[in-house]
Amino acid sequence: MTGQDQASELKVIAFDVFGTVVDWHGGIRAEVERMLPGVDGDAFARAWRAGYAPAMRAVMARIAAGEGGFTLVDELHLHILDEVLRDFGVEDQLDRDARRRLNTAWHRLPAWPDAVEGLTRLKARYTICTLSNGNIGLLTEMAKRAGLPWDCILSAEVFKAYKPDPRVYLGAAGVFDVAPNELMLVAAHPDDLAAARACGLRTAYVERPLENGPGRPKDVSPDPDNTFHARDIVALAEQLGC
Amino acid sequence: MTGQDQASELKVIAFDVFGTVVDWHGGIRAEVERMLPGVDGDAFARAWRAGYAPAMRAVMARIAAGEGGFTLVDELHLHILDEVLRDFGVEDQLDRDARRRLNTAWHRLPAWPDAVEGLTRLKARYTICTLSNGNIGLLTEMAKRAGLPWDCILSAEVFKAYKPDPRVYLGAAGVFDVAPNELMLVAAHPDDLAAARACGLRTAYVERPLENGPGRPKDVSPDPDNTFHARDIVALAEQLGC
Repeated sequence: MTGQDQASELKVIAFDVFGTVVDWHGGIRAEVERMLPGVDGDAFARAWRAGYAPAMRAVMARIAAGEGGFTLVDELHLHILDEVLRDFGVEDQLDRDARRRLNTAWHRLPAWPDAVEGLTRLKARYTICTLSNGNIGLLTEMAKRAGLPWDCILSAEVFKAYKPDPRVYLGAAGVFDVAPNELMLVAAHPDDLAAARACGLRTAYVERPLENGPGRPKDVSPDPDNTFHARDIVALAEQLGC
Repeated sequence: MTGQDQASELKVIAFDVFGTVVDWHGGIRAEVERMLPGVDGDAFARAWRAGYAPAMRAVMARIAAGEGGFTLVDELHLHILDEVLRDFGVEDQLDRDARRRLNTAWHRLPAWPDAVEGLTRLKARYTICTLSNGNIGLLTEMAKRAGLPWDCILSAEVFKAYKPDPRVYLGAAGVFDVAPNELMLVAAHPDDLAAARACGLRTAYVERPLENGPGRPKDVSPDPDNTFHARDIVALAEQLGC
């Protein structure tokens, strides 16, 4: 099948955001180096991001055990920041207000250079939305600053469940009253795409080889289970004939 | 105080949608007259809209009694449509598929002529969002068709509560991590504005004298309890110095 055959029933394209649409490493590194002179911003950014998966697993385990509620990613990021500051031995350099300011660096992440053009082209034919564990306020401020032209901001916060919980992927299909295979998830992360596929969504992988920083290239090999594989979002738009 | 003093701490402007930003009467009337030739589209549109408040009260009562869950406005509209078709004696003219098509007329409502310009001007300085009982999918399709430049689509569907429940107004402030008085609701409906004020929000009334159709002008007298009173959304942008 050609790309256009693959897309024949597609109505809505949902995007993972951190790493897929915006450059978390570059954005966090720059703000860390500005607010914490002398700190290795490259390593700090990776450490902050690395804290996310275990923190999220802990929240999900507490929710599953009936011991906790839904937590905004802004709160998780702040909690992880406290730990990373301690690990880097610089916890005395930022007071509570400064930590809160640095924490909103995640709201100010820069778009990858292809993102605005690619999204704008896709938006002309499809409904495009975020589908991120990031909270709505974070994603809204990011979109406003970076000029990301979403039709709609969907978040784990809407579904009170986090990816890779099926309720998020199927919830997005429900919001738009479409069948799962009329919805496609775009992400730079195989685990997110695999969970979406398991719910019946189409999937598109976009290569972000430098997501983790210039010194840590990622494996971006194609996986035939994805409906599309694209270098970036402009290339995906081209494959879809947009 | 001048308008700009009143707005000094304002960060987010949330909009009621049906009647305030889009012309439900004109939009529904046109689609009814196209799909149901010979039916009085003016009266049919008013009857469909009039069914909304009692249907919503019934849903809220069922939820309060623990007998029902959150219901999308798309579903309410379809249920009311069935009743109105019967009341107008034309239930035989539309099968189930045609009813579903007519029901999505609420997704295709035209913007009032000032809305796109007014929202675009306000968006340059503030975060602008919907705050409607309409479901997210409905509001997204409407925005895409009418060119409404929302930063974010907020809906009762996010909060699993309907206006005038305080959880909706305070929930919107929570999403953006702002104090209630840093958020303003814009609406053409005094009851919605009164409920928002009771939660500490600022309020702006916009006149929509022909919301119910050309033959049924509304009282649009100012209420001094509102922070702003404006002829339309462009006039509100001017009062805010946008």
